[in-house]
Amino acid sequence: MTTSSYPSKLLESAVNEFAKLPGIGKKTALRLVLHLLRQEKEMAFKFADTIHHMRQEIMYCKSCHNISDSETCHICADANRDNTLICVVESIRDVMAIESTQQFTGIYHVLGGVISPMDGIGPDDLTIGPLLEKIKSGDVKEVIFALSTTMEGDTTNFYLYKKFEKYNVATTTIARGVSIGDELEYTDEVTLGRSLINRLPFEKTL
Amino acid sequence: MTTSSYPSKLLESAVNEFAKLPGIGKKTALRLVLHLLRQEKEMAFKFADTIHHMRQEIMYCKSCHNISDSETCHICADANRDNTLICVVESIRDVMAIESTQQFTGIYHVLGGVISPMDGIGPDDLTIGPLLEKIKSGDVKEVIFALSTTMEGDTTNFYLYKKFEKYNVATTTIARGVSIGDELEYTDEVTLGRSLINRLPFEKTL
Ligand SMILES: [Zn+2]
Ligand SMILES: [Zn+2]
Repeated sequence: MTTSSYPSKLLESAVNEFAKLPGIGKKTALRLVLHLLRQEKEMAFKFADTIHHMRQEIMYCKSCHNISDSETCHICADANRDNTLICVVESIRDVMAIESTQQFTGIYHVLGGVISPMDGIGPDDLTIGPLLEKIKSGDVKEVIFALSTTMEGDTTNFYLYKKFEKYNVATTTIARGVSIGDELEYTDEVTLGRSLINRLPFEKTL
Repeated sequence: MTTSSYPSKLLESAVNEFAKLPGIGKKTALRLVLHLLRQEKEMAFKFADTIHHMRQEIMYCKSCHNISDSETCHICADANRDNTLICVVESIRDVMAIESTQQFTGIYHVLGGVISPMDGIGPDDLTIGPLLEKIKSGDVKEVIFALSTTMEGDTTNFYLYKKFEKYNVATTTIARGVSIGDELEYTDEVTLGRSLINRLPFEKTL
């Protein structure tokens, strides 16, 4: 379908915005926009305004860097969680995946990715500094590495392990029930829950 | 992933809004929202505001019922188009599909669907009244039926044919190069263009 065939600039602009989203082509974008046009105006406004409001108001927890509606996320703020036990993950989705297992009683630290020289991501691009500060404070008993079982994940595990070696903190890694090369977020809840319970000292996995 | 595992109400609301769109599940919705969170704020605002603005401002052409940025769409307003030749289509997408063939020099009439008793859609739910008015005016020489080659499309073709019979207007239908049961909008441009050129008097297809 040629661009010139759009009957309206307003329609075309909306289609182009949707088509900027990952995995959404022009045809799908058009279908979504026409769906919003068939709805009552208020429904489309609610869609748009919810997105705007979310992007405007959302925060990142100052402690764990998870998405939050307040300065400190509800996990870090929960007095029942063990804040001497930190599970290090790549992304917000990984926090959600582990939370849904209901097996983990500690807190998180969201790195924001993994070290990947190919993608130009070095240690300084991640939240490793604040994590190291927490460990230096001496309040952390154990750090669990729960990164994806990819080469980049392993590199990051090892980098962190070497950084933390000199401090009085246990470093463990979730059990590799997950096949090598799998992304953590696609792992089923049972496997993920079990791998947390069966975590191993990191040295044993070297 | 359980609902309770969302780290933020703002995030959850945005995911729920995306998941209302056809073909978008919760997992995909989350992916899209996290994408918007990784972008600069201004990018996400532009996405949301473009959708809001589109839904607020868009109009339907008072003549052909196509989507338009003004009271009369750019096709109806084009003095080079033959307004004695009307192509009847179901939807805006069909107008776009036919326009992209660059084979059609007349104007359109968007019905807004086809007669479908199963879906509770009768003649009064479509823009058949205004189309009949145009034909009664005597200015229309030919009406081309370009509806989907489904049972509902055929029913609608026949209904319109019987309505128009007593007026001095030729009724044609696009050539059935399209396999029976196919939706018009998924037909490739060449087939669609050719089927317009080879259109037949409707009686010949009965
Ligand atoms: Zn937190
Ligand atoms: Zn028009």
